[in-house]
Amino acid sequence: MNPAPTHPDRWRADNPDAPAGLLEAFCAYEDALMADDLAVLDDLFADAPGTLRGDPEGLLVGHAAIGAFRAVRGGAPSRTLAAVRVVGTGETAVVVAVTEPTRGGHGLQTQAWRRGADGAWRIDVAHVAPPPVTFDASVWRVVGDPLAFPTGAGPLTGESVAVKDLFAVAGHRVGAGVPAWLAEQEPAASDSAAVALLRRAGALIRGIARTDQFAYSLAGDNPHHGTPVNPAVPGALPGGSSSGSAVAVSLGAATIGLATDTAGSVRVPASYQGLWGWRPTHGGVPTGGLLPLAPDFDTVGLLTRELDPLRRAAAVLLGESAGTQTCGERVRPATLPGVAASARAAFEAWADAAGLGILELPDLAEAAEAFRVHQAWQAWQAHGRWLTSHPGAMLGAAGQRFAAAASVTVAEDRAARATLARWRATLDATLGDATLVVPSAASAAPRRWATPEQVDAHRAATFGLTCIAGITGRPAISAPLLTTPTGPVGVSFIGPRASDLALLEEAATLPVGVSPPG
Amino acid sequence: MNPAPTHPDRWRADNPDAPAGLLEAFCAYEDALMADDLAVLDDLFADAPGTLRGDPEGLLVGHAAIGAFRAVRGGAPSRTLAAVRVVGTGETAVVVAVTEPTRGGHGLQTQAWRRGADGAWRIDVAHVAPPPVTFDASVWRVVGDPLAFPTGAGPLTGESVAVKDLFAVAGHRVGAGVPAWLAEQEPAASDSAAVALLRRAGALIRGIARTDQFAYSLAGDNPHHGTPVNPAVPGALPGGSSSGSAVAVSLGAATIGLATDTAGSVRVPASYQGLWGWRPTHGGVPTGGLLPLAPDFDTVGLLTRELDPLRRAAAVLLGESAGTQTCGERVRPATLPGVAASARAAFEAWADAAGLGILELPDLAEAAEAFRVHQAWQAWQAHGRWLTSHPGAMLGAAGQRFAAAASVTVAEDRAARATLARWRATLDATLGDATLVVPSAASAAPRRWATPEQVDAHRAATFGLTCIAGITGRPAISAPLLTTPTGPVGVSFIGPRASDLALLEEAATLPVGVSPPG
Repeated sequence: MNPAPTHPDRWRADNPDAPAGLLEAFCAYEDALMADDLAVLDDLFADAPGTLRGDPEGLLVGHAAIGAFRAVRGGAPSRTLAAVRVVGTGETAVVVAVTEPTRGGHGLQTQAWRRGADGAWRIDVAHVAPPPVTFDASVWRVVGDPLAFPTGAGPLTGESVAVKDLFAVAGHRVGAGVPAWLAEQEPAASDSAAVALLRRAGALIRGIARTDQFAYSLAGDNPHHGTPVNPAVPGALPGGSSSGSAVAVSLGAATIGLATDTAGSVRVPASYQGLWGWRPTHGGVPTGGLLPLAPDFDTVGLLTRELDPLRRAAAVLLGESAGTQTCGERVRPATLPGVAASARAAFEAWADAAGLGILELPDLAEAAEAFRVHQAWQAWQAHGRWLTSHPGAMLGAAGQRFAAAASVTVAEDRAARATLARWRATLDATLGDATLVVPSAASAAPRRWATPEQVDAHRAATFGLTCIAGITGRPAISAPLLTTPTGPVGVSFIGPRASDLALLEEAATLPVGVSPPG
Repeated sequence: MNPAPTHPDRWRADNPDAPAGLLEAFCAYEDALMADDLAVLDDLFADAPGTLRGDPEGLLVGHAAIGAFRAVRGGAPSRTLAAVRVVGTGETAVVVAVTEPTRGGHGLQTQAWRRGADGAWRIDVAHVAPPPVTFDASVWRVVGDPLAFPTGAGPLTGESVAVKDLFAVAGHRVGAGVPAWLAEQEPAASDSAAVALLRRAGALIRGIARTDQFAYSLAGDNPHHGTPVNPAVPGALPGGSSSGSAVAVSLGAATIGLATDTAGSVRVPASYQGLWGWRPTHGGVPTGGLLPLAPDFDTVGLLTRELDPLRRAAAVLLGESAGTQTCGERVRPATLPGVAASARAAFEAWADAAGLGILELPDLAEAAEAFRVHQAWQAWQAHGRWLTSHPGAMLGAAGQRFAAAASVTVAEDRAARATLARWRATLDATLGDATLVVPSAASAAPRRWATPEQVDAHRAATFGLTCIAGITGRPAISAPLLTTPTGPVGVSFIGPRASDLALLEEAATLPVGVSPPG
């Protein structure tokens, strides 16, 4: 009878020249991995800033980042070892293992081990690959080749669309990121207005992409379906609520992300992933067949890797209603409250080089709070009845947000509306036809191991930037212009209402070229 | 201005301690990869039997296998390098690169280099990971979470089905592996009979999986959509025509593969991938809503990783019509013409240990040829009209097979039918109620770099084994029992007609446990 796969004797005959102690260390690591014994795992990785661990989500650099990742992972998937091959006979060796996850297929793991001064073997580099994924349900709810054909030919022929799961696609349900909701829906009889426009212009529908629950989040961490990868920043949140559309575009699985932006749900994932994002002038794109969150702020927007398809798709969605408003001087606020130092430094260096004027903007805290209240009130109007009859349907932060929304009173909402009307007038007077330029988010994407408090603080600061477009109904483009040590940050250009086409035209002059993080 | 990413100076500052010459070798490798310069690539991999190259399709062992893989790959996807990190300062070092494919996302590549006696750096181990895949269109045409909900609860509650793209699923087209066909279809108004039965018994539909063109192949290499991975054998064909259903099941993306078996399209992928496969008694499972290939041979079958869900799902599909025929003695043929030596050795060792009786079976060459002719005639009856009006719609070997089918005359088919009727009587007389046991395929899965002639010869020999069930209408189970040096091989148990349930019951006594290939 063979020894068990995590007993070193099991692999001795296949690797007679393996250095002494290596197979023992390797098997101890495998045992600790299956037991999620973080102390042993941490100990078996070299405690150095250059220690590396890579997987499909990216490359983590340094013992600390690797440990932080492991601490929130909640254990590795159950597996056994199918084959182990040792290459090297000295003080360093590479161990390649074919893994056999319980759920199927074969994975691959490559580890570079080194014997330290204390005689113990430790891992310098690990590269972990699960079996091939054929369908990532954290990114898509339904996807196909295609899911729906174009209905015409035109400027979008050859493009493929990842449709946020709030838009009706003929023959498919709208799922809204909430399984209990999805289960009760009927297939849509016809396409939503935006989907119909894109198909008629030649685009195919690649699939229906995940959203945060009822789009009430900026994080992209829907607890029902798992948090999709951020393809630009290893271990980071992808941003939401248009998480699936953004990730599908980042990975090249679709060329256009059809999304919504109520309080930043296009601009935040664009910023986190180094994409182009567009929030149109309020009312500029028809919302027929779109499940609402807060109609006074809801807009239909787009995400792309390149500017060119964004310009073509935006023109299609705007159609006849595209305004001809031009954009005035580009200005930036004198201060950026709550924006992280690294993002602010990158933004200011760019803004200085671009010669942006400076605008004294009033403190927006009151306006942001009124936005928050009126958004919550509308969200409860849209979904409160259903939520009340489906306790437990919502999970996590978005669920808590709806619970809080339930307690907003009519009086509070009336006050918030009045505040918003006043602020809209104030901002219009202050901005005029200028293009206001701000970071698209308060920092690069938070890591998944950020605390809920950190994520909340980041969200609040980001909200202070994104709410300007929502309050004024002005359009915004998020351009992938900035690189910080912790990932990309977008730059938002907020133009006067109906200046969408002018904003997009001017975007073509921007010096794009975000370096990916190492 | 920075040097280009494939110039060693680009990465010098990030890796000041890199051993002399290593970055030069690394960059030369990257240049050769992008140029698909096979000679340079071969030279930069250590010329040794223990050299390793792994990717999501598995681990290739040895310089020769790696070179063979590379020769048929047709170049690596276009990419640039986003980051390079060297770990190690002596005669061995690991280079980890973050890659940036043109189509999106970030990949990862880990290489273990060693400086040889000639002073040149060469790769001992390479581990290559593309960016995350969110949708593998070589496996699925459409897939969802779920694609279609169960319509009832029962013995299949909790199971998920990969439906071969020949069965109608309500609201979806039938694509049959032929894009020009797909483009002309309308969504099905209702489920095919088998899909309806599975859903009513509690199974959800995970997706619609790829098939070879009109199911007229045993290879699984549909040229329109790419060849799916064989999760059990690196670099091998997955088997067909139920390729997508089989691969989805192998990888755990679905628990049940709904498939068809006309001439082996369930049993061959089961054999190649180490799965359970079932071809029912002819007529035992309703074929309503199934696109035909050759109705006199077409059956609705299943693929699973474990026997238990196969038994439950088979009982659901058989329903009231499940026969109560028992199985007699297990016997094997005295000879296995065309079966590869390694598969024959594994089979005979197993059969000897199992104490199988030996049956003198007549030479089946005439019967197999008659099967081939009548299958071709029927295939042309089913699809010839459409194919004639769509020249160029078919590619590759299946296209050639249809072209040949067009020339089968009525007289040839009449003669073939008579031959088949005679052989059916002969085989029934010879077999009686015995269970005939044969290898499910003539060898382990052919590698993708096998020549068309090799694949054809293998197909012909396999056909000699699989045609017995087709000619007699007898049911067959393929069990994942054999391991050969080149991959798993299934064992087929062909029972008397209507013995499906008895075959499945007896299968539970088999000593399953295929070791995966290293």
